Amino acid sequence: MRKEKLEELESYLEELKTVKQVRKDPSFLTRLFRGKGFLSSDVYECHLNCGRIVVREKLVKGKKDGSAAIIFALTKTNEVLLNVEPRVFTNETVSLGFPAGYIELNETPEQGARRELLEEHGYQAGEMILLDEFYQDEGCSSAFNRIFLALDSEKVSEQHLDKDEIIRPFLCTYDEVLELNKLGYFTGANSKLAIERAKEYLKRR
Amino acid sequence: MRKEKLEELESYLEELKTVKQVRKDPSFLTRLFRGKGFLSSDVYECHLNCGRIVVREKLVKGKKDGSAAIIFALTKTNEVLLNVEPRVFTNETVSLGFPAGYIELNETPEQGARRELLEEHGYQAGEMILLDEFYQDEGCSSAFNRIFLALDSEKVSEQHLDKDEIIRPFLCTYDEVLELNKLGYFTGANSKLAIERAKEYLKRR
Repeated sequence: MRKEKLEELESYLEELKTVKQVRKDPSFLTRLFRGKGFLSSDVYECHLNCGRIVVREKLVKGKKDGSAAIIFALTKTNEVLLNVEPRVFTNETVSLGFPAGYIELNETPEQGARRELLEEHGYQAGEMILLDEFYQDEGCSSAFNRIFLALDSEKVSEQHLDKDEIIRPFLCTYDEVLELNKLGYFTGANSKLAIERAKEYLKRR
Repeated sequence: MRKEKLEELESYLEELKTVKQVRKDPSFLTRLFRGKGFLSSDVYECHLNCGRIVVREKLVKGKKDGSAAIIFALTKTNEVLLNVEPRVFTNETVSLGFPAGYIELNETPEQGARRELLEEHGYQAGEMILLDEFYQDEGCSSAFNRIFLALDSEKVSEQHLDKDEIIRPFLCTYDEVLELNKLGYFTGANSKLAIERAKEYLKRR
């Protein structure tokens, strides 16, 4: 990397940093009637290092930021645990993906990942390896997702889902996951990144 | 792929399809006071093929679904066009990424990608290649993003941003993009996927 280019980049990053963020209170009536759903948003006035002030809206999911754990789980018999779930707003209305879920405020990302694997599949993971982390939608959200590789997962219980959750567990081999990926069965950003990171990691082993 | 496994998968996908979707009208007061921001949501009652009914919320961004185009643009002199932008809700509050933006209702994804490249960098693209497409957040949104590779991009005008937009253009070589990626400068899901797909494509050329 050219030294002057890295300095140029760092100067832009410094210039556009937020130095102060003020949440703007919604009006009393908006607070009262804005709906009591899972999705909501808050408005912030953001003061940048360069002196500019911008107003941005932040997505809130059930009072949290919506950070999720995505788990590429291998069982002791070398199968991969997959989910088939309704995804009602996609063209297909249903999709194939990985066990995943929101990280609770009182748990670490790894704890959240282990809990989701247990709830959605009844599997307990052995070693968990953090493969990557990334913002899901950085323009309007602070959701910071983690992809874990779960090794030696073992069936210890039944599936335990929330009452509005529907997941069909689907198990296949690692090679079949890659084949299904080539066939276009995985359509979500989280799933696509999980497959790339798992491929990179497992190739190196 | 084992035939019986593919049949099992297809049966789950069929079973969990949505056959009917009914948007639930918010109350008059909620409609009146819910706030007039960019982010909002609608509630749908979804009837699945298996008979179950689930209620899901759909994220709306300024009356659209928020589908975006992300552009990995190479110039005629083989530089890559990057953006430094405030990302006020991330830990870093600022990030490095690719030219990108929401696709308007009256344009194709490619038209949207060309317009964004022109607005954000003042560059006109030559050939555009669709590298991938994916749902950004399939649980609560129908946003379907496209990653384009723009070849032979050429400077034809100044930057033309919306009044609340701030972008510092940053140009470097393809190898420097890969180096910055290894150093952890790219933190968004869209950027990470764009780099993977560009790498795959350019390796094959």
